[in-house]
Amino acid sequence: MDDSILTPNKHRLKLVIAYDGTDYGGWQRQSHGPPTIQGSMEKILSHLFDEPIHLIASGRTDAGVHAVGQVVHCDVTRDPSSYQLIYALQGLMPCGIVVRKAYIAPPDFHAIASAERKTYRYFILNRPIRSVFHQRFSTWVRKPLDLDYLNETSRYLLGNQDFKSFQNVGTETKSSVRTVYEAQWKRKKHGMIEFQITGNGFLKQMVRNIVGTLLDFSLNNTPPEQLKEILACCDRRKAKRTAPPEGLFLYKVYYPENLDKRCRRL
Amino acid sequence: MDDSILTPNKHRLKLVIAYDGTDYGGWQRQSHGPPTIQGSMEKILSHLFDEPIHLIASGRTDAGVHAVGQVVHCDVTRDPSSYQLIYALQGLMPCGIVVRKAYIAPPDFHAIASAERKTYRYFILNRPIRSVFHQRFSTWVRKPLDLDYLNETSRYLLGNQDFKSFQNVGTETKSSVRTVYEAQWKRKKHGMIEFQITGNGFLKQMVRNIVGTLLDFSLNNTPPEQLKEILACCDRRKAKRTAPPEGLFLYKVYYPENLDKRCRRL
Repeated sequence: MDDSILTPNKHRLKLVIAYDGTDYGGWQRQSHGPPTIQGSMEKILSHLFDEPIHLIASGRTDAGVHAVGQVVHCDVTRDPSSYQLIYALQGLMPCGIVVRKAYIAPPDFHAIASAERKTYRYFILNRPIRSVFHQRFSTWVRKPLDLDYLNETSRYLLGNQDFKSFQNVGTETKSSVRTVYEAQWKRKKHGMIEFQITGNGFLKQMVRNIVGTLLDFSLNNTPPEQLKEILACCDRRKAKRTAPPEGLFLYKVYYPENLDKRCRRL
Repeated sequence: MDDSILTPNKHRLKLVIAYDGTDYGGWQRQSHGPPTIQGSMEKILSHLFDEPIHLIASGRTDAGVHAVGQVVHCDVTRDPSSYQLIYALQGLMPCGIVVRKAYIAPPDFHAIASAERKTYRYFILNRPIRSVFHQRFSTWVRKPLDLDYLNETSRYLLGNQDFKSFQNVGTETKSSVRTVYEAQWKRKKHGMIEFQITGNGFLKQMVRNIVGTLLDFSLNNTPPEQLKEILACCDRRKAKRTAPPEGLFLYKVYYPENLDKRCRRL
């Protein structure tokens, strides 16, 4: 099935959604286990549009990972302009998912194929005492982290290179080469640290493997150059543990300007 | 039992605690229903100090209400200085409760009786689209609120007066007269509104009844003077609905300086 071909008399709907991934088994629909974002949303949209809806997301977030600006698309027969769509969906969606924006997209828009860049953010609460208010949305690291060190080390992530060492073991992909445009650590209020990474695409668990490795590096005063060596090995076993999912947010997905311009806000 | 008398050879322990009240049945220990903050903490502290521990909090928060700076005290036989107390407790406490600070308090310190002032904060997300990330800790109000109006109206709350109209029905108290020193609305980032109220004490559900009434006033353009009239009636039926618990935080409890000075940080 080529998702990018629009059946006649169909409207391509583009949605920007946010979710608290804590209680979900990730994006992808599953027959067993906890509810998934895709499964929950497809059920509600199918009911609303009175036809089976198949949602395609820019990327599949793992269980426990959150999204601020996940982008999804689907095709619907009824004209979505006739609904107060985002308000109707607010009442229908479970409390962990919200549709922030809705658009009629041109037929050549595709949530995965058209995506040019993605930004992820990872939040770390870095202080001696944990916080009950941030625990769903951050990882707690008690020992002080050195942000200058982390920023210096993260420079080795920039550019077009093979990230096989940071790919989840057992994942099949045509290529593990990706381009990282930005990898920056910032100190926020009350001991919160934000890591922001932007790339043309990310391998399975790549961000969490990078964060886990960099945290391990900082806590063990590993020479920054070792990150370059890990990348060169193209071997997941050389990198460190995967950082937990609760700190990770799919923050934004970027599409070409000519596609954005042809999207009509509902 | 007079809690303020310290048995010989006992140490009075003062703890500043924070909790996410979402999954708790309020502060007070109960034999049925969901776990309570008091019940959960007493169990852990009794185990740690190897004796039955009875905790006294500055005030009993209701089910679903949170605390940033709740203050509690208890008496222990073992010298608490010999523990890395707050670090030990971080590992032992359930994830919704954290002990932020621990002190050896003078024997005349009492969490309820010594309290001079309390500050509560109530958070309202005021924007058309709800947020999945703030829903545990705020109430969502879709229609725009008028902060100038709310601040003007809230001036009627200031001073020493009878707050019986804002007291939970069926609650027995010696007096429903309280002093409110501050009642202020502030706009924060991303559509969040913070209401801060400080008083020498608060009646059961007083803050939530005040917030519920003021929100109703703002959404219905009620003349501000009507708040004065509601207060004068001393009748709960004149005020409006109780605002939901998830927006409310016990923010800070103030004690006399001479007591604070004699507390020794652990």
